[in-house]
Amino acid sequence: MNFPSKLIQNAVDELARLPGIGRKTALRLVLHLLKEETTDTRSLAEALVKMREDITYCKNCHNISDTEICNICANPLRDHYLLCVVSDIRDVIAIENTGQYKGIYHVLGGVISPIEGIGPSDLTIASLVERLGNAEIKEVVLAISPTMEGDTTAFYITRKLRDFNIRITTIARGVPVGGELEYTDEITLGRSIIERTSYSK
Amino acid sequence: MNFPSKLIQNAVDELARLPGIGRKTALRLVLHLLKEETTDTRSLAEALVKMREDITYCKNCHNISDTEICNICANPLRDHYLLCVVSDIRDVIAIENTGQYKGIYHVLGGVISPIEGIGPSDLTIASLVERLGNAEIKEVVLAISPTMEGDTTAFYITRKLRDFNIRITTIARGVPVGGELEYTDEITLGRSIIERTSYSK
Repeated sequence: MNFPSKLIQNAVDELARLPGIGRKTALRLVLHLLKEETTDTRSLAEALVKMREDITYCKNCHNISDTEICNICANPLRDHYLLCVVSDIRDVIAIENTGQYKGIYHVLGGVISPIEGIGPSDLTIASLVERLGNAEIKEVVLAISPTMEGDTTAFYITRKLRDFNIRITTIARGVPVGGELEYTDEITLGRSIIERTSYSK
Repeated sequence: MNFPSKLIQNAVDELARLPGIGRKTALRLVLHLLKEETTDTRSLAEALVKMREDITYCKNCHNISDTEICNICANPLRDHYLLCVVSDIRDVIAIENTGQYKGIYHVLGGVISPIEGIGPSDLTIASLVERLGNAEIKEVVLAISPTMEGDTTAFYITRKLRDFNIRITTIARGVPVGGELEYTDEITLGRSIIERTSYSK
């Protein structure tokens, strides 16, 4: 695609480098910005740069944070005996939005994936072990996606935590709420039968 | 959705104001920027602000341009007797990319739409009429989308151009190249029969 203006060309090129944004979408965004006030573009640009430059990661749990210790770790009302291990910041946001979890987190920064060249040392597993040695944690919840890489990572972590006197749990697998039995895959349905729970309202 | 960081929150809010980008997509973009270098975010932000602040519109054809007169109007190799009227800058880019058009353009800046409160005076129709009075144009090609608003706009323009001794044409409507006859809507197929052209290889 050729553009009548180098300025447009540059802006489209930059936007099209973002994931899921092709050159047509980038052009649509650029033309939208052209219709809006200049201050809108400036505030978008400033928000992105400020976010990128000022963001830090929590020293404890490696979650994104505006401060050295994140809001969750610094909150005395949270259950500091309960620690949830997730692979990504997005998972923290997803779990927080359920409103069902009151403990603290540990963000691994990915999962073990030999194909992508990600080994245990690329994740924050050493920091997790150190943390469990220093703090009084009673239960570790593994909330890692049940893919092959995720399961490998979960297995590796359970091996590392063997020597600690800590209960290790994992989030329940089963038929999604609102899901139909007949459309659920066999493995999920099978696990949902094996891991059946007492009926309660 | 709640975010663990105000910086993230702001960046997501700003991105989510763009068309077609929801809060989940915005978060994905933000997390992508966090993974990349800080300079990447800065160059994206700079490209957007520079584009928004420095862009101008061609004095002749109202196309976006880096200079007072756009590349197309300033190009002596283009056919300055042939003028194509389009509603939007995007249409100029689309037609330019076909490589089939060698004339110049006039960008209306929209179509007449009483529902959206856009009347003829909100478009560059007066400027078009003035331009046709001053320059020697032999043919005006109306390349406006065949919607109700587009057809109204085309009709309004033809009325305005009645007194000029100029040939007025419109882009061909018909079965798209590669399209199947049986799946073409009746109006398009009907027009493609009425406006049939001589067979040529």
